[in-house]
Amino acid sequence: MKNKIITISREFGSGGRELGKRMADILGYSYYDRETVTEIAKRMKKDETYVSTAFEKGVFLGVPIHYNQTLAYVSPQEQDKIDLFVETKNLLTEFAEKGNCIIVGRAAGIFLHEYQPFNIFVYADMAHRVQRCLERTHEYETYTKEELEDKIRRIDKDRANYYGLVSKKPWGDKSGYHLCINTGGREIKQLAPMVATYAKEWFTTPL
Amino acid sequence: MKNKIITISREFGSGGRELGKRMADILGYSYYDRETVTEIAKRMKKDETYVSTAFEKGVFLGVPIHYNQTLAYVSPQEQDKIDLFVETKNLLTEFAEKGNCIIVGRAAGIFLHEYQPFNIFVYADMAHRVQRCLERTHEYETYTKEELEDKIRRIDKDRANYYGLVSKKPWGDKSGYHLCINTGGREIKQLAPMVATYAKEWFTTPL
Repeated sequence: MKNKIITISREFGSGGRELGKRMADILGYSYYDRETVTEIAKRMKKDETYVSTAFEKGVFLGVPIHYNQTLAYVSPQEQDKIDLFVETKNLLTEFAEKGNCIIVGRAAGIFLHEYQPFNIFVYADMAHRVQRCLERTHEYETYTKEELEDKIRRIDKDRANYYGLVSKKPWGDKSGYHLCINTGGREIKQLAPMVATYAKEWFTTPL
Repeated sequence: MKNKIITISREFGSGGRELGKRMADILGYSYYDRETVTEIAKRMKKDETYVSTAFEKGVFLGVPIHYNQTLAYVSPQEQDKIDLFVETKNLLTEFAEKGNCIIVGRAAGIFLHEYQPFNIFVYADMAHRVQRCLERTHEYETYTKEELEDKIRRIDKDRANYYGLVSKKPWGDKSGYHLCINTGGREIKQLAPMVATYAKEWFTTPL
């Protein structure tokens, strides 16, 4: 039997990570999030910051910008991008082969397309996202509302950039997902069992 | 106890109407769709085509285009628009007061905002929408694929126009809905119980 793969893309501050974690607990699935960065960095023999920057912004830092341009020449940036994609694909495929799982971020829905994952996008209005960040992350306590909104918009833009490297459809465009969930004004712990039930049923209905 | 209101907006051909009907059957809710047009036309003393055109395209036909423009003067079109909104609001409010219900179309989620409805948007990729139209509506059997795609796009544009008369957010923009459901490649009869369960839980969790 084919393993069940759920992927979660999410706006920053919308609670997508918490949703994924809680769903994984409810469903008894494995849960993968930041550990993918650690593992891919190790395989690429790069440090984690380099890889997470590549993931988060879709840019490849710290490689020489001068190099010979000949027809068959692949620049270090291009090589790193290829490596990142290859390692991401390999790692996500390993997860998918290992058992039922939920993967947050990394455009996993695109990389694991042939596994017919159930792809979720999680979003919320700005006011609720700001509130969520302020309530849950000590680091943001010193931010003004405007600074936090700027940060949220910047992170989302980065995520969209990364997603754009592997998908023709824009990040967050609902046509790229099976279910889009607005978490605004709701507790994730209340939504998680609802979405988990939905996902469970999703996998029992034939395509 | 407050009545439970579910509103469904939908792309043409995505199966939103069937979803609403099936959910209403499962949940034991009343279901309202085209009958709103009949009833509003009666109350406005207009014929149904006039009202359905106003609903579907957001335009008001057949009224004289020449009239005096003075400061306090309301044109017949403007008066009809006001009347349509007033009668829509009144009728939808009557539905909402009467009992739990599902309302398809008419921007009901906007009109019934104070009832805190659960607002759903239903969509699918073009290929599946064309397929659905061809399979289910005899009228479309003579259409080419291109003609049907044109028709689908035109109807969606009309719906967006009407929605734009009452909402600041664009029609189909996921921020205006609690849940967006991609029906592409799935049978509505399989999705309906999943969404019904989700909606039921939605109403049991406090805001």
